[in-house]
Amino acid sequence: MGGLAEERVRAAVEGLVARDVTLIDAVLAGDEPINALHIEVDERCFRLLALHQPMATDLRAIVAAVKINTDLERVGDLAVNIAEAARRYAGHPPVKKLVDIPMMGTIAQAMLRDALDAFVRRDTTLARQVLNEDDRLDELKTRVFRELLTYMMQAPTAVEPALDLILVSRHLERIGDHATNIAEDVIFMVSALDVRHHSPGPEA
Amino acid sequence: MGGLAEERVRAAVEGLVARDVTLIDAVLAGDEPINALHIEVDERCFRLLALHQPMATDLRAIVAAVKINTDLERVGDLAVNIAEAARRYAGHPPVKKLVDIPMMGTIAQAMLRDALDAFVRRDTTLARQVLNEDDRLDELKTRVFRELLTYMMQAPTAVEPALDLILVSRHLERIGDHATNIAEDVIFMVSALDVRHHSPGPEA
Repeated sequence: MGGLAEERVRAAVEGLVARDVTLIDAVLAGDEPINALHIEVDERCFRLLALHQPMATDLRAIVAAVKINTDLERVGDLAVNIAEAARRYAGHPPVKKLVDIPMMGTIAQAMLRDALDAFVRRDTTLARQVLNEDDRLDELKTRVFRELLTYMMQAPTAVEPALDLILVSRHLERIGDHATNIAEDVIFMVSALDVRHHSPGPEA
Repeated sequence: MGGLAEERVRAAVEGLVARDVTLIDAVLAGDEPINALHIEVDERCFRLLALHQPMATDLRAIVAAVKINTDLERVGDLAVNIAEAARRYAGHPPVKKLVDIPMMGTIAQAMLRDALDAFVRRDTTLARQVLNEDDRLDELKTRVFRELLTYMMQAPTAVEPALDLILVSRHLERIGDHATNIAEDVIFMVSALDVRHHSPGPEA
């Protein structure tokens, strides 16, 4: 499911950058497998809780899996949202530059991949690296917003495509937020430590 | 926690509509209680799972609570996002009309309240009503987007405030999505039925 989510984000960003309508349409049409897995993973976690009454680490792993499952389903939705904006964007003459959107795409994808690797390998060091990456994504989102806003005010014909790029930057930031959630769940799963809503702590 | 989340959404929307900077700043400054409850509720659910090994309905109620907890924390974040946009918006001359934003605020708040009432009363009929409301919110979001886009292209000075209103409409739509998630969890909790990713079914 993580692999599918990663692949759909990659395809949506590539479709946007390359203005590849075939690729974009494939993302728009392909949400079903992740949705089916979303239901299946939830059912399997619920059965594990009901039938095996797991304790300690196992219990934390299953609770983490329930949450990560929700995050991955949302990432799949965000890939669709990016593809929707990319579809409209491809119908306009290109905005002069994509500003920092491709960079944001690269960071969001790396965060997602690292968070999933951290989950599989129970690697809290890697999970803490993901938490640190989130600030870079926030900064880029703010910069993209400011640059495109200035551009829109100067060129009314650029309003529509620039607005879609702003929306894409928000979707990418949210993918980073979901990767952060996953990384926090990995830390909780491995070390029973809740690192949400405060700084990553001295280990980071 | 549901009450806090509702109240923060209400205050953020009222702050935007009334251009009330004091109210907006109160929303921006007041995220801490929900974040603290987010951690506390999760801990209590985890302890219930670990110590009491609940079965059937109780187990479904606790798994639902873990998910609803996440949704409510995000709703609190979205109230902050609305307040951030409202803060910028209040610094500009007002856009001619707020289009359907106040209506979207009313619907999103009603969905959230109904979803939480449905959870407390284990009322699947009310939960299914929430699922039906989500389409209206999506339609309004699309209409807001179209109207404000047209407006931005005609009046470059309106680009900045109109863009903030578009962002607010997206935040309100996401609050509706979280209310929908909560309603789905209520149906699962009460009737062990997974209604996600397909139509609400004949009972609706």
